[in-house]
Amino acid sequence: MKALVLFSGGLDSTTALAMAIDKYGVDNVVALSVSYGQKHNKEIEASNKVAKYYGVEHIYLDLAKIFEYSDCSLLKKNNKDIPLGDYSKQLEELDGDTLSTYVPFRNGLFLSSAASIALSKGCDIIYYGAHSDDVKEAYPDCSKEFTEAINRAIYLGSGNKVRVEGPFVNMHKADIVKYGLEHSVPYELTWSCYEGNEKACGKCGTCIDRLKAFKANGVKDPIEYEVE
Amino acid sequence: MKALVLFSGGLDSTTALAMAIDKYGVDNVVALSVSYGQKHNKEIEASNKVAKYYGVEHIYLDLAKIFEYSDCSLLKKNNKDIPLGDYSKQLEELDGDTLSTYVPFRNGLFLSSAASIALSKGCDIIYYGAHSDDVKEAYPDCSKEFTEAINRAIYLGSGNKVRVEGPFVNMHKADIVKYGLEHSVPYELTWSCYEGNEKACGKCGTCIDRLKAFKANGVKDPIEYEVE
Repeated sequence: MKALVLFSGGLDSTTALAMAIDKYGVDNVVALSVSYGQKHNKEIEASNKVAKYYGVEHIYLDLAKIFEYSDCSLLKKNNKDIPLGDYSKQLEELDGDTLSTYVPFRNGLFLSSAASIALSKGCDIIYYGAHSDDVKEAYPDCSKEFTEAINRAIYLGSGNKVRVEGPFVNMHKADIVKYGLEHSVPYELTWSCYEGNEKACGKCGTCIDRLKAFKANGVKDPIEYEVE
Repeated sequence: MKALVLFSGGLDSTTALAMAIDKYGVDNVVALSVSYGQKHNKEIEASNKVAKYYGVEHIYLDLAKIFEYSDCSLLKKNNKDIPLGDYSKQLEELDGDTLSTYVPFRNGLFLSSAASIALSKGCDIIYYGAHSDDVKEAYPDCSKEFTEAINRAIYLGSGNKVRVEGPFVNMHKADIVKYGLEHSVPYELTWSCYEGNEKACGKCGTCIDRLKAFKANGVKDPIEYEVE
């Protein structure tokens, strides 16, 4: 068995990479990082460091052109403010729409790219870091239903050769960190913050979630934050 | 309603484009052409001519990098012979594998790219030229089951905003040509042949299928062939 891991350099996908390496062995794992025109290169830099740490094969794709027409606030070209604060609070103000940080069908696109590459590289399985705290009202391509649907599409469309597995899809972010801490995942090398400053902002939705997940495990997040 | 049409410049997708324009009006249609590193630019040239003919908005993407590791015979980088003859004969010799002309998960990748762009451009529907003559044993990402599965994934992952429709999925290629002839589709501008010579080869699987579809309608294919 050989696995391809969709790997952003963030907390969830780094833990998924660690899990795949643990299960299949480092020579049977390929990590795939995709740029989508985000505001900064901190995630890509983090993905390079983590891949080097594990000595795993690492493929990089730039798909920014596909998001050329999107008004998503995470995209560099849009020069928009990224909303701050807890996701649940952001959602209250939404009125049924997706968040401005929803990158249109990003996970579907990334998983499909991963399927094409998995077939070429002889991988049977795609690992993907979605988890149950992802708010599907805001990020519909993070839901369990979506993961099941794209898994079926990839399985059928690959001639029954490739499956998608979201090993954390029923887990909370705190459980992911728990697994990672038990398996010595190098969280000090990862990057989650939506902003691209020297230190993580500590105020955006993803920073808040990350900080909470470490706190739930009684452990200090090893990366530096602008706020305490 | 606004439609995005996955549009290669071939016979099927040009007819799908004509159908979308007929149904939604030319100002509510976006055509998307994707390069995947194929041996020649004849399809892309054809897509430009057809888009210009209809005066429809036309977006072009180059996704060749994703197929960098594939050994598919349609890719320029591989410099492999493309198998000749009828698909059914090619399949007999296959022994359960996909054809060498299967581009790994190409349709899934293209439809996912289309979903990202459709969301950005406010399109509700993606048109896609798959039909019932597509041999799913060789091209699993052309089957009806796959179209249904990717439709569900795109619908869920887009927050119930975008659907995939394969208007020809229950039709034969001859029926597509029938519809196109009735709607004056400019087939003289299209390109289907896997080879990139001045004239279509008339010998590859796709040329043979195309010639048969015109013959079934009692009409001569308006493009030129190397063979009679």
